[in-house]
Amino acid sequence: MSKVFVSMGISVDGCVAEPNRSIDNMGSEGWMALHRWVFDQRVFRESLKIGGDGETGPDNDYLTNTFQRIGVNIMGKKMFHEGERAWPEDAPFHTPVFVLTHEVREPWERKGGTTFYFVNDGIEAALLRAREVAGGKDVRICGGADVVRQYLNAGLVDELMLSVAPTFLGNGLRLFDGIDAKSIGLEIMEVLASAKVTHLRYAIKKR
Amino acid sequence: MSKVFVSMGISVDGCVAEPNRSIDNMGSEGWMALHRWVFDQRVFRESLKIGGDGETGPDNDYLTNTFQRIGVNIMGKKMFHEGERAWPEDAPFHTPVFVLTHEVREPWERKGGTTFYFVNDGIEAALLRAREVAGGKDVRICGGADVVRQYLNAGLVDELMLSVAPTFLGNGLRLFDGIDAKSIGLEIMEVLASAKVTHLRYAIKKR
Repeated sequence: MSKVFVSMGISVDGCVAEPNRSIDNMGSEGWMALHRWVFDQRVFRESLKIGGDGETGPDNDYLTNTFQRIGVNIMGKKMFHEGERAWPEDAPFHTPVFVLTHEVREPWERKGGTTFYFVNDGIEAALLRAREVAGGKDVRICGGADVVRQYLNAGLVDELMLSVAPTFLGNGLRLFDGIDAKSIGLEIMEVLASAKVTHLRYAIKKR
Repeated sequence: MSKVFVSMGISVDGCVAEPNRSIDNMGSEGWMALHRWVFDQRVFRESLKIGGDGETGPDNDYLTNTFQRIGVNIMGKKMFHEGERAWPEDAPFHTPVFVLTHEVREPWERKGGTTFYFVNDGIEAALLRAREVAGGKDVRICGGADVVRQYLNAGLVDELMLSVAPTFLGNGLRLFDGIDAKSIGLEIMEVLASAKVTHLRYAIKKR
């Protein structure tokens, strides 16, 4: 069966976004400090058609393996609305993307295989549909923090993948604020390190 | 010159202690989830004379290398008062330990080379004295969170060493609450992984 995994860029102080960020957060200084390593990788540059050779080291392997696992992406409405303004026409997902929202809206098809579906019936129903269309691949919870916390606290996530960037974001948006610590056990699956970022991969076990 | 480094055990959600902890926090379930790996290592078991062979893998090497660097330990008064009730007579430091406190108290000598000195004139003066007696070795800031934050924000720390245990502590004491993110740059120096814990070592650069 499809696995469900969270994959997020995070700062050393546990933030996934800067304090006082606007809807145009993507591309800001703090956002780039978290995600700059992604833009250096060949697989991402090719996916986004932004030119340049890009790197082919361990971070590129990590990203390639992660992309290849994903059958469906799930994200919250804030992340979608930020991205809607920032992503190129050929959006960087290349899968169906389920957007958790109260908004009723027709699917939005982009070039390159990304179609956004707006789902209105909650996280569990969204996951059920995601599994159906994932074609045996895995389901990725992309964020934001609120959506990740909901899925973790509901016991619906199999793996937590954190890419820890060497930066502090200060009083920003903490990924694990409100986490139900007592119900969630973690086991180290894999640690992958480069000079730019540290990838931590945990299996999640009920406890 | 001596380097100044922070070395702390931390949870995946960035906590160094449980919520609602008492002064008898050491040994509690959350505390053990953070620090259990230490008790499994040969160098620590020998240091504490608690018997059993202990492990000799990468975590033991990491701990051995860290212990060997330390000329002086610096800690806050809360950490000291917790430890005063919990540490064995042969306290697990084997160096001079400077306790930052307003309390005026004679040095407290323990078996095995640990002597606690109670310093009343602030973090900079304590560090100056620590450098003098470190004998060319390094100065470790042991904690708690408040003391670590003060030293980081004052720009007095060269290296940040985090041992990330695979656990969430929930609404506990966050190591980096109140960090002056804008003044502190980080560079990845080393990542060392085992099945039990992930050691992240960062060089600190002013920015």
